[in-house]
Amino acid sequence: MKIPRRNILEQTGAVLLGAGLVGVSKPFAQSAAEPAGNGASQLPWPYVPLDGDIAAQAAYDGYYKGACMYGVFEGIIGQLRQKVGGPYASMPTAMMVYGEGGVAGISSLCGTLNGAAAAIFLIAGGMQPERRKAAYAVTRELFNWYEQTALPDFRPLKPKFEITQSTARSPLCHASVSRWCAASKFKAFSPQRAERCAWLTGSVARFAVTLLNDHTANQFKAKHVLSEATATCRDCHDQGSKLENTRGMMDCGGCHFTSPPTHPKKRVSSR
Amino acid sequence: MKIPRRNILEQTGAVLLGAGLVGVSKPFAQSAAEPAGNGASQLPWPYVPLDGDIAAQAAYDGYYKGACMYGVFEGIIGQLRQKVGGPYASMPTAMMVYGEGGVAGISSLCGTLNGAAAAIFLIAGGMQPERRKAAYAVTRELFNWYEQTALPDFRPLKPKFEITQSTARSPLCHASVSRWCAASKFKAFSPQRAERCAWLTGSVARFAVTLLNDHTANQFKAKHVLSEATATCRDCHDQGSKLENTRGMMDCGGCHFTSPPTHPKKRVSSR
Repeated sequence: MKIPRRNILEQTGAVLLGAGLVGVSKPFAQSAAEPAGNGASQLPWPYVPLDGDIAAQAAYDGYYKGACMYGVFEGIIGQLRQKVGGPYASMPTAMMVYGEGGVAGISSLCGTLNGAAAAIFLIAGGMQPERRKAAYAVTRELFNWYEQTALPDFRPLKPKFEITQSTARSPLCHASVSRWCAASKFKAFSPQRAERCAWLTGSVARFAVTLLNDHTANQFKAKHVLSEATATCRDCHDQGSKLENTRGMMDCGGCHFTSPPTHPKKRVSSR
Repeated sequence: MKIPRRNILEQTGAVLLGAGLVGVSKPFAQSAAEPAGNGASQLPWPYVPLDGDIAAQAAYDGYYKGACMYGVFEGIIGQLRQKVGGPYASMPTAMMVYGEGGVAGISSLCGTLNGAAAAIFLIAGGMQPERRKAAYAVTRELFNWYEQTALPDFRPLKPKFEITQSTARSPLCHASVSRWCAASKFKAFSPQRAERCAWLTGSVARFAVTLLNDHTANQFKAKHVLSEATATCRDCHDQGSKLENTRGMMDCGGCHFTSPPTHPKKRVSSR
């Protein structure tokens, strides 16, 4: 179950597994770890390079049908249903509506990331450790990009409003929304905020497609790493540290604005 | 897209929609909102009452195959594959491995909740607003229960260790893990912590099955509400408030240990 966490570049840079350079890649042979009696096609599912802009517009449109998680998932899987067919025809993408507003409006994990991570695993992952590692490297790059980049960077064909960018510093729905509200001066339940999340749905679908295209062409390489401040936190709290009392690859400062009064003075990370 | 957030009991108590009292419930007719050309069975999928203890043990076993999100999802869907068959036979439950350790080890949303929310929506949800509302009410009850309850409350048939309980106060993986580490004195990457998450996978699968059985018998009623302290935060920051600069139904104090120095003195919620 354990995933090595130290030195992210080392982890992700080493992952150059791909399902095929050209044409439709073939799924791996059935694994003994798959549940018996499951008639579903085994992972990874076949993939052909997709058009990121088409996925982004479809994701934007999907947002207004089934919200953020559905928008990204359908934006990617919908193209594959058309181009590849096969198992994609039986995928109930409407299931992903559940991720709306950080799952059922609870505002935990941003639905765009949740939907993209599911699609990435379907195409790049599998039960085997090496396939999990490959899919997780792609997913971590997506999450770090989302935390660190001024978004949305996609503009739909027929926008309802023009949208200000903001940097989320967190993969969480409510943190991402709050930082956008601060940047734009619009409220969290305004139609402008909904349109911002629709643009963001397009942005995440497009970037996920870029990553999947690179991955299946054996050209994926992570470009975003956790901040130095977060590395400092991890030095004492994450795997292999003295305390080892948490885990994770989120930007700690995105939520923990201040340290508890009893926290030792921060030091510069040795990494 | 908007979901009314005030008065959770009112929201959830009013939701008594169900797919059928006995036998296999029938999926709703195809909705115009479903994507064209999608050959997948429309939501909600048919359901028969399940045995929560069987789901919990299967989820525990599934944790050691495909981690937390997969464990819960397969624990529920696996029983339905056997009892109902049909669309469940083509569901690639291995996709849900992506939720491992709060998605790819990033430690955002707890995978057990992510997997349960997906299964709940498949069985209780749909594109239509009234079906989303029904599934979201069930999902919110699950999240509030998880935040507020001493867990795990499931013990597998052959435990690797005996496990201390803790209360997560958050739906997030790393917060849940940290509070368990504090309670148990074990480290975040110890085999005891892995076993704790395996027990928790069983707990969440069992509670989700209880909720689904109640929902489909028209007997679902929410019993867990957000804390008074969180309601106080929401009075100024959530939908319809003066600031309206965030959204959500998480326990604010689960992560924001201290208010910023500039924050006004807290007042008692009027709710």
